[in-house]
Amino acid sequence: MLTLLSENRSFGGAHRRYSHTSSVLACQMNFAVYLPPQALAGTPVPVLYWLSGLTCTDENFMQKAGAQRMAAELGIAIVCPDTSPRGEGVPGDPDGAWDFGLGAGFYLNASETPWATHYRMHDYVVAELPALIEAHLPVTQKRGISGHSMGGHGALVCALRNPGRYQSVSAFAPICHPQACPWGEKAFSRYLGPDRGQWAEWDACVLLATNREQLPILVDQGGADSFLHTQLMPDQLQRAASAVDYPLTLREQAGYDHSYYFIASFIDEHLQHHARALLA
Amino acid sequence: MLTLLSENRSFGGAHRRYSHTSSVLACQMNFAVYLPPQALAGTPVPVLYWLSGLTCTDENFMQKAGAQRMAAELGIAIVCPDTSPRGEGVPGDPDGAWDFGLGAGFYLNASETPWATHYRMHDYVVAELPALIEAHLPVTQKRGISGHSMGGHGALVCALRNPGRYQSVSAFAPICHPQACPWGEKAFSRYLGPDRGQWAEWDACVLLATNREQLPILVDQGGADSFLHTQLMPDQLQRAASAVDYPLTLREQAGYDHSYYFIASFIDEHLQHHARALLA
Repeated sequence: MLTLLSENRSFGGAHRRYSHTSSVLACQMNFAVYLPPQALAGTPVPVLYWLSGLTCTDENFMQKAGAQRMAAELGIAIVCPDTSPRGEGVPGDPDGAWDFGLGAGFYLNASETPWATHYRMHDYVVAELPALIEAHLPVTQKRGISGHSMGGHGALVCALRNPGRYQSVSAFAPICHPQACPWGEKAFSRYLGPDRGQWAEWDACVLLATNREQLPILVDQGGADSFLHTQLMPDQLQRAASAVDYPLTLREQAGYDHSYYFIASFIDEHLQHHARALLA
Repeated sequence: MLTLLSENRSFGGAHRRYSHTSSVLACQMNFAVYLPPQALAGTPVPVLYWLSGLTCTDENFMQKAGAQRMAAELGIAIVCPDTSPRGEGVPGDPDGAWDFGLGAGFYLNASETPWATHYRMHDYVVAELPALIEAHLPVTQKRGISGHSMGGHGALVCALRNPGRYQSVSAFAPICHPQACPWGEKAFSRYLGPDRGQWAEWDACVLLATNREQLPILVDQGGADSFLHTQLMPDQLQRAASAVDYPLTLREQAGYDHSYYFIASFIDEHLQHHARALLA
């Protein structure tokens, strides 16, 4: 069951926000969808799932990325889930930090108390939400996935863990090697516990090494991103890809930072990357 | 003197926020500017001034309108001032309302106590800010002006009151006849006092009737805008234009509301409208 929260006309299509009860996350969730004109006119369209970064909700990408123009032109829907479970009874960071808990679900399935009850964003994003979207909205079962920062990590991991589920994948400034950076170490140690063997299952650099599907990955990384060397580490992704001859296109965009001004500047090229697979 | 607050690379150009001391407004002000790649490379470019609506700051348009792509392509700078004076000592609405005072300067010069000291947004937008921009940034003296809602009113009034100052003008969902709508009546009665003769000097429908320059006006209005009939009244602008054969292009865009999703959908066409005059 989807409850429509709001709708805005946008480039001849519709931006909508819905809420629904997630059984996977055991809470009420909001998500946003952009339906291009083709979908409103009755032609099912493929879907690009966008996973946002730390502190974001379903709203940031829709308001700031400027993606609707090209999505309308290509005929691709975009779905933006929230970045964590929410609501009464969902525990957040005990210290109120912004890099763990609410707004920081890291797109994994937590195994540790008290997180395991609600923090199952991987299963939500990969299975429950698409099933809902495909049952209730005019879309096909062709799926792409992309995201930014924590959501770039999410996009890579969702695609790499689930061969055949996505036809295309890309990322902006992803956390490439979370088991070895401060944001990832904090999140993984709490959500997954102390066993680093478990952490590896949620790390793109590790997953890429044994992936047989080899879905081509496009990554854009700003050269002036203040998190580049401390948290994001695209050089580790490049090294992992080179070792197994994985088709990774990693582009360093000189002068660009970690903001939505960076994302907006290159989102058209990512949509075109996805369209080549989704509309083939 | 301009103090750089932040800079983001955007579509090969730069989005910057500056602060400065405004002598007209007697306070510290922030503004945002988008400089396209041509300007960064040393070629002075014309400037489109964008006036935002109630409750906004210099940030809304830059984050949500998606204007930078086309501005970069055309080679036009965009300047977004704040929507009122700000800071300690600047009085706001006594009841804390959002439609008067802070964030609601209405782009006029107030005559009444206690507003007259700081609320002189017309002179700031038309004279002080452009002088600063043209002295310190790589721009020409060709100027266009546009805006949304209260800022659409501001754009029309600034252009109509100052023949020769702007080469182009447009508006999204402007408050067309402020002296006869609730938002305008509240603001004008406080900023300008009870004499309605003074109000007429800040009303686009009145100013248009006696304007000799007849700069062509492009207005887009969403057909599903909830403020359409109560506050915006584009039919009054159409009537005033028809009476004097003023070159007004008023387009009702079916299904669109008052949000930035509407603005983003048509901003490219407005930029092209301005470019035809600014790059001629």
